[in-house]
Amino acid sequence: MRILVTNCNTTERMTKEIEAGARAAASPGTEIVAMTPAWGPESAEGWLDSFLSAAAVLDLLRGIDENSFDAVVLAGFGEHGREGARELLRIPVVDITEAAAHLACLLGRRYGVVTTLDRTSGMIEDSLHTAGVLPNCVGVVGTGLGVLELGDEQRTASALVTAARRLRDRGAEVVVLGCAGMTGMDRRISTELGVPVVDGVAAAVRLAETLAGLSLRTSQIGSYAPPLPKTRRWHR
Amino acid sequence: MRILVTNCNTTERMTKEIEAGARAAASPGTEIVAMTPAWGPESAEGWLDSFLSAAAVLDLLRGIDENSFDAVVLAGFGEHGREGARELLRIPVVDITEAAAHLACLLGRRYGVVTTLDRTSGMIEDSLHTAGVLPNCVGVVGTGLGVLELGDEQRTASALVTAARRLRDRGAEVVVLGCAGMTGMDRRISTELGVPVVDGVAAAVRLAETLAGLSLRTSQIGSYAPPLPKTRRWHR
Amino acid sequence: MRILVTNCNTTERMTKEIEAGARAAASPGTEIVAMTPAWGPESAEGWLDSFLSAAAVLDLLRGIDENSFDAVVLAGFGEHGREGARELLRIPVVDITEAAAHLACLLGRRYGVVTTLDRTSGMIEDSLHTAGVLPNCVGVVGTGLGVLELGDEQRTASALVTAARRLRDRGAEVVVLGCAGMTGMDRRISTELGVPVVDGVAAAVRLAETLAGLSLRTSQIGSYAPPLPKTRRWHR
Amino acid sequence: MRILVTNCNTTERMTKEIEAGARAAASPGTEIVAMTPAWGPESAEGWLDSFLSAAAVLDLLRGIDENSFDAVVLAGFGEHGREGARELLRIPVVDITEAAAHLACLLGRRYGVVTTLDRTSGMIEDSLHTAGVLPNCVGVVGTGLGVLELGDEQRTASALVTAARRLRDRGAEVVVLGCAGMTGMDRRISTELGVPVVDGVAAAVRLAETLAGLSLRTSQIGSYAPPLPKTRRWHR
Amino acid sequence: MRILVTNCNTTERMTKEIEAGARAAASPGTEIVAMTPAWGPESAEGWLDSFLSAAAVLDLLRGIDENSFDAVVLAGFGEHGREGARELLRIPVVDITEAAAHLACLLGRRYGVVTTLDRTSGMIEDSLHTAGVLPNCVGVVGTGLGVLELGDEQRTASALVTAARRLRDRGAEVVVLGCAGMTGMDRRISTELGVPVVDGVAAAVRLAETLAGLSLRTSQIGSYAPPLPKTRRWHR
Amino acid sequence: MRILVTNCNTTERMTKEIEAGARAAASPGTEIVAMTPAWGPESAEGWLDSFLSAAAVLDLLRGIDENSFDAVVLAGFGEHGREGARELLRIPVVDITEAAAHLACLLGRRYGVVTTLDRTSGMIEDSLHTAGVLPNCVGVVGTGLGVLELGDEQRTASALVTAARRLRDRGAEVVVLGCAGMTGMDRRISTELGVPVVDGVAAAVRLAETLAGLSLRTSQIGSYAPPLPKTRRWHR
Repeated sequence: MRILVTNCNTTERMTKEIEAGARAAASPGTEIVAMTPAWGPESAEGWLDSFLSAAAVLDLLRGIDENSFDAVVLAGFGEHGREGARELLRIPVVDITEAAAHLACLLGRRYGVVTTLDRTSGMIEDSLHTAGVLPNCVGVVGTGLGVLELGDEQRTASALVTAARRLRDRGAEVVVLGCAGMTGMDRRISTELGVPVVDGVAAAVRLAETLAGLSLRTSQIGSYAPPLPKTRRWHR
Repeated sequence: MRILVTNCNTTERMTKEIEAGARAAASPGTEIVAMTPAWGPESAEGWLDSFLSAAAVLDLLRGIDENSFDAVVLAGFGEHGREGARELLRIPVVDITEAAAHLACLLGRRYGVVTTLDRTSGMIEDSLHTAGVLPNCVGVVGTGLGVLELGDEQRTASALVTAARRLRDRGAEVVVLGCAGMTGMDRRISTELGVPVVDGVAAAVRLAETLAGLSLRTSQIGSYAPPLPKTRRWHR
Repeated sequence: MRILVTNCNTTERMTKEIEAGARAAASPGTEIVAMTPAWGPESAEGWLDSFLSAAAVLDLLRGIDENSFDAVVLAGFGEHGREGARELLRIPVVDITEAAAHLACLLGRRYGVVTTLDRTSGMIEDSLHTAGVLPNCVGVVGTGLGVLELGDEQRTASALVTAARRLRDRGAEVVVLGCAGMTGMDRRISTELGVPVVDGVAAAVRLAETLAGLSLRTSQIGSYAPPLPKTRRWHR
Repeated sequence: MRILVTNCNTTERMTKEIEAGARAAASPGTEIVAMTPAWGPESAEGWLDSFLSAAAVLDLLRGIDENSFDAVVLAGFGEHGREGARELLRIPVVDITEAAAHLACLLGRRYGVVTTLDRTSGMIEDSLHTAGVLPNCVGVVGTGLGVLELGDEQRTASALVTAARRLRDRGAEVVVLGCAGMTGMDRRISTELGVPVVDGVAAAVRLAETLAGLSLRTSQIGSYAPPLPKTRRWHR
Repeated sequence: MRILVTNCNTTERMTKEIEAGARAAASPGTEIVAMTPAWGPESAEGWLDSFLSAAAVLDLLRGIDENSFDAVVLAGFGEHGREGARELLRIPVVDITEAAAHLACLLGRRYGVVTTLDRTSGMIEDSLHTAGVLPNCVGVVGTGLGVLELGDEQRTASALVTAARRLRDRGAEVVVLGCAGMTGMDRRISTELGVPVVDGVAAAVRLAETLAGLSLRTSQIGSYAPPLPKTRRWHR
Repeated sequence: MRILVTNCNTTERMTKEIEAGARAAASPGTEIVAMTPAWGPESAEGWLDSFLSAAAVLDLLRGIDENSFDAVVLAGFGEHGREGARELLRIPVVDITEAAAHLACLLGRRYGVVTTLDRTSGMIEDSLHTAGVLPNCVGVVGTGLGVLELGDEQRTASALVTAARRLRDRGAEVVVLGCAGMTGMDRRISTELGVPVVDGVAAAVRLAETLAGLSLRTSQIGSYAPPLPKTRRWHR
């Protein structure tokens, strides 16, 4: 099993962290290949960044040899691009946003998402809605820390716990870490809060393995039919 | 990894089929233990059967040694009991209804469910609603075949394809097999229809492995806190 | 008119209280027969209890002579079993959860439910959803008192008023007492709060009389068709 | 018990029919007083008629002595005015639209409404939504017969059965008669269709008795607080 | 372009203010004609007033020469009557409630409404729901000031800002002024709050111009078909 | 007033058509400037194209002098990018998808959308959902004609009428033309169908004028706050 994990931004350091998180979560025998888009934002924090990231990630994906991978994981929490990747590829595509939500639904009656800046909350909600897993989500709460400010683990943990407590008050029984850059902090936060904490990268890697393992591939009829042949210019 | 799979009815033959389906879907190294409740209906087709089944399956589960298993799969499509099992156990519990829906959401924009008798459609819808995965479901359609009438594989396949076409007309891009007794027919139907077909038992086994593999356990706060100590009489 | 009222737990004292509440609410000429299930939990506080209770109450109901009654009231707030009872019987079945909500909708634009432990709130919400009366409900709030701790009327009243005030802040204009064990406290709380307070047992008895009085019976097509003949084992 | 039933239009013949239906449905000892508004449309079939009717019915209600009645039934299916009457009066107000839906929810998992002209379907849907009972409704279907064309009982019955069959195909297990002028046809249609048929006037009379019998009155806080004292001119 | 703007109450002073607001918002070349209903409430604050107002405004509209106007604006925030006016007239009808919401949706992801008394919040919510623009509304909050108490501009501004801050906390990024009597305060409040503030009268005038300018007229099929010819008495 | 209209694809001919449609719809005194993105797909028919288009259009927009325009119209029906443009610019941004829906809501109780290929229906639904105007939409139906196949006006009109009739059967009272390439066909289709037909380009131009005319600008708090300063690479 070989899974391609794409970072949604151009920050190589984050790709490394995501790769490490993916490897830690993968089953024995699964190979993780992490890639960074050649262009796009250095971090995605809002719709402008997200649309730019989507095009850059799709540009990356159209360049790979699909036969070398069993599945793709899109490691941008709340970022756009998911449905386009499903049109482009026949192998399964799993986005870390939906993946975390799917697992969270199995662990408690309601879940909540802690993320970076509040400005991205709406985008995450929309992504969960489109993925069909919004009903059991009680909210998306920001920590006030930007994507590239998550390095100070102590500060990040403290901010995550504060945000998670607000979700708890709204009825969340499970917490989702809403940024690929938070990968690896799930156990620490879980211990502190006493609730299950789901990391999207880990969830997505396992779900990608699951789909590939069961020989399930993206539907080719309707929404995700292969893109029509036409002229597409990918940059100026 | 050791997973307990519980049939929801007392028909041993179905337990065997479920066990075979679970084994075929499990990852290498996963041991499947299938159990039949000691009481309940011989097949579950409606609410009366489902509530009876729920109590019988919970009676079974309270008797197991939780430490011997890594996760539990409830192999009754649309049947009740799921939330009670989550209160009872600390290891993850995955119901085949929700499991199939979770995977279906990853494979197409909309999915539909083919089931046995139309009378159970409403119960399945309610189960998907409670699990938080109803929004992308376009409908639940019956084949007119009872749970114990699925033995004639040719007739069953033909009825499934007819029902699945109705869902296709409503926009389904993925089909879910809505009965544990249909386990094993997914590839045949998928080939005939040209869309991905998800089998709940297979989906649930893999999701159970995923949760256990990531050390994720049912939330112990709120809804699924352990049952309060009290007198409970499990039978007359 | 003869109405069967079933307690959802095995505590005889509660059956007596429910019976008294039902009698106080019934029209002149209506006979109330209250029954306690022969097995099940001594109180229902969560899904495990609720599923156990559902099977035990259905076991009770399959043993009665349907011709001796005009309607059945299920006196377990938020408990499962309702739809199974409708399959089993042709006479009308009214659950106190839905009954209270139906009347509450007629008395104010939004209503709220005060219940025992917070852990049961989700189950009550799900029950209201399935019954089709959730939209005008602003929330279900627990008092922190267990079903068998409601005996101290002063403490219970005080806890109910506190919980009801939280619902008032969310826009509730009517309050529903969300436990059969709270029967009889409606007027006291109503006076203290200055809003209508609906007791489920009273509501259900009157709605059962209404359906029977209008010769309305449960639909026999679709969801609540009579159970199929098959082997069902009701206990080990 | 004394219940005021108001027709929503100025056609005296319909008031008589409504009165007869209300009397047939009332409990022994309940006195029915039927009134016709002094102005308004001769039949209500659309929003213009409905708003005109609402003002005329409220004009009627502000002239009654509230102490002479125990409850009010508004006998206009889908017509406006309900919430205004609740502000105006302290005794319970029950509208036949919501009343029929409340009872229908108790008799099957899904219900549908047959009405007069298709143009009124949307208004009825909106009324059910506001009343909080829309979720279990599968649709509102017109017969093509205007309110004042219901006199030919044979033709009306035939049109109702045709419309009800369309609802049945959408999953309706219970049928609601969506016009006060259809009062009295419920049993005939029920026999022909083999499903429970609910008449709004009968339902509302019984629900009004229920609320009054339980001493439940409209909430005086929030939405339905008494109208503020001010100058109101009720006509040119 | 000639637009008729109808006040929903009988207070001439408010008609003048609405007229001034409409003129200030209108495009060059648009003539505004403001009218006061000949009867109805002196202010509309609740359902009783609203239904009375609806009939009075429709009475006014049936008396105009439709050919003299290009569109109609209904200047009652949250008041009833809109759909009736659409049946009555072929020229476009725009209600200030929906108009403000439509523009608000274009300016931020979520909006909120500040209104007069809390008792009218529910009615406004219902009006937004029926108009199809409720999803992005985070709430309707009252200022505690009645319609005729808005004259003290300082006090009103202060109350509006307080209410708007509550909406901001719920995620509103745009504020709607929920009363025709608040017309003209939008810029002041916008400056104070730092968010766009939409006035319904201004929004509706521009939307009316837009529809008329594009030769778009109310659909004559289905819901808003012309009223059937029949006897209608508009007053006692 | 000067409005920038951006085509979503690289086909200059379509930009010309959109420009002509925009001019025909604009008020006197409004100048229309139409632009074509320097890169992207030659037509947008699906998510891959849409995400590529979104980045290309945002790249175009970041290069303009915002002070030269009063508003921006995004002329891609159902295409992504809208929210990013709102972050990027302070002047109002109106997308033709939402614009058409906003006007359609004012003309009938329910509307429907006719579009090009069925594969884009889901994307349009999602766009309407996010814009907050999905509730009154009965569906999005494809004509089977691709974006670049709309040139044969006779064939296109015929396909649009066929698709619109399907929407009519679902209750649509207003039809929206769901592709910028259909601009100019609204009156023809309207005449043939007898219902109002809304063209998104025309609707968006007028709404852009409205917002600019009322000095309303995109909210700068929350979701659409200006993009954070950071490194963004717009192409390889």
